Amino acid sequence: MAEIWDQPQALLRLLEHEADFAAVSRALAERSPSAVRLVGHGTSDAAATFGTYAFGLLPGWTALRDTISLTVYYGASFDLSNSAVIALSQSGRTPDVVEYVTRTRKRGALTIALTNEPDSELAAAAEATIPLCAGPERSVAASKTYMNELAALALLAGGAAGRGREIAEGLRTVADRLAGALGPLERAVAAPAVAFAYVGRMYVIGRGLEFATAREIALKLTETCRVAAEPLTATDLAHGPVAALDSLFPVWVIASHDESLPAAAYRLPVPQPPIPLLSPLLSVVPGQLFAASLARAKGLDPDHPVRLTKVTLAR
Amino acid sequence: MAEIWDQPQALLRLLEHEADFAAVSRALAERSPSAVRLVGHGTSDAAATFGTYAFGLLPGWTALRDTISLTVYYGASFDLSNSAVIALSQSGRTPDVVEYVTRTRKRGALTIALTNEPDSELAAAAEATIPLCAGPERSVAASKTYMNELAALALLAGGAAGRGREIAEGLRTVADRLAGALGPLERAVAAPAVAFAYVGRMYVIGRGLEFATAREIALKLTETCRVAAEPLTATDLAHGPVAALDSLFPVWVIASHDESLPAAAYRLPVPQPPIPLLSPLLSVVPGQLFAASLARAKGLDPDHPVRLTKVTLAR
Repeated sequence: MAEIWDQPQALLRLLEHEADFAAVSRALAERSPSAVRLVGHGTSDAAATFGTYAFGLLPGWTALRDTISLTVYYGASFDLSNSAVIALSQSGRTPDVVEYVTRTRKRGALTIALTNEPDSELAAAAEATIPLCAGPERSVAASKTYMNELAALALLAGGAAGRGREIAEGLRTVADRLAGALGPLERAVAAPAVAFAYVGRMYVIGRGLEFATAREIALKLTETCRVAAEPLTATDLAHGPVAALDSLFPVWVIASHDESLPAAAYRLPVPQPPIPLLSPLLSVVPGQLFAASLARAKGLDPDHPVRLTKVTLAR
Repeated sequence: MAEIWDQPQALLRLLEHEADFAAVSRALAERSPSAVRLVGHGTSDAAATFGTYAFGLLPGWTALRDTISLTVYYGASFDLSNSAVIALSQSGRTPDVVEYVTRTRKRGALTIALTNEPDSELAAAAEATIPLCAGPERSVAASKTYMNELAALALLAGGAAGRGREIAEGLRTVADRLAGALGPLERAVAAPAVAFAYVGRMYVIGRGLEFATAREIALKLTETCRVAAEPLTATDLAHGPVAALDSLFPVWVIASHDESLPAAAYRLPVPQPPIPLLSPLLSVVPGQLFAASLARAKGLDPDHPVRLTKVTLAR
């Protein structure tokens, strides 16, 4: 919980490595990959969703959240000579991610690790590693790691498009606006958190760039508040799940600045991003604070959810 | 509901078009795409998940469920000259899918439509169209369309790998085993359906090839039974959502043949597939029958869920 408040500082720590990002971006640009394969689980997988947009919008490259099992369990034999791999892991110890990087590197992919642990197995397996600098995450809900994963992906994609400096400047502004917004947002989430104390299921709706935000907020609500929260795009919702909605089924919507939601019972303001691509770094924060507040309203410990450990070694 | 029973016949109708599939597979193989971009919503998106495995395992090509919004709303400028697009739509009228195909075709992608409506806008927009032959779907839960989308993707991927005949033979065997299994499975789902009448949320767990099955069953449970059912891989579950589980939160697991689940309260047997890749065509059926049975147990009409229409025109 305290870690939500450390996020502006964590972003600034990451930006001290601007030169490392620039070097890895140059290696990426030289490869000019036909596919950027992003892999990670949980929060890191939500960040990978943002990565598909960052690489699609900045250098105009095809990026995908790759299916680890195709390579690791089914032994599919892709031609990887023209691929880049970006593996995301807080601990650097997620077994199937390490195995995926080992195999794809052997088969010619340019492999990059983004992890808090530069001495980890994952860092040893990858050709290049950049530290996420999130600092110690004492709580299981890895808020700072998510934030810095988004920033790292934006820096890599920006650098590959020759716009690394601009993205770095934008991230400094984000850190600043975030620091100013945390106090008012924490006060704003208190009322809806109490109102949601008996909610068992929710949808979290976000479109485009904000689908990553929807995924991350849904995960936080599920793991810290024991709410069955599912992330959907508005289009997904219309294609089936809308049938399940009723008055006991609340919806959290990450609205774009051009959308108005007159029917919303609660509205939480989010600061404007300096660059539209960086919007998800700001729009996730009301969800982080809401999840922490809701967990407390339900008598749960947001930092130590049941059945979860900091490092997940499940295969 | 009656349409679940028509699936073996629907598969055989599709196989009458074996020559059309072979022709489109040849065009795909000539292009030898660096990326196969699959697009669709709802059931068609679940089928696209299967497509990423079919193309990965048969010709060894990179296939991804592409993000429609990057191309349609953000105007990202991918190089598509080496891409193939496969668009899936029951009605052929889904607006953003039609727009996606129009734009990607203009920019050089080989575009293929799989739809029940060969006279639709989608068919007009794509370079090649193969009819899904599911026949009229009177119920909203498009079971036959899903089944034939999987078969169509397997035929295209098999053809691209020079294994089209083998896959077609396998599909004939699937149709046969399916016809024999429907009666016993319908009787087997009755008891768990009654036991689940008060369930509000569920996880549906499937790994690898069976993740498509998990997505499709979760969608059916959500839209016909108003259960908040979320599809997850076992790894996803361990990375967060496991914290939400309690005794009121049942889990549906699509187990592989080498897994045993001694703790399961109910087991539903699924016939063996003639080829492992075709397993999802069989393993989805207990879920279809269970959803229909559960809807009736809850007093809902499985063929006409609230708020859903056969053709979804949401953007």
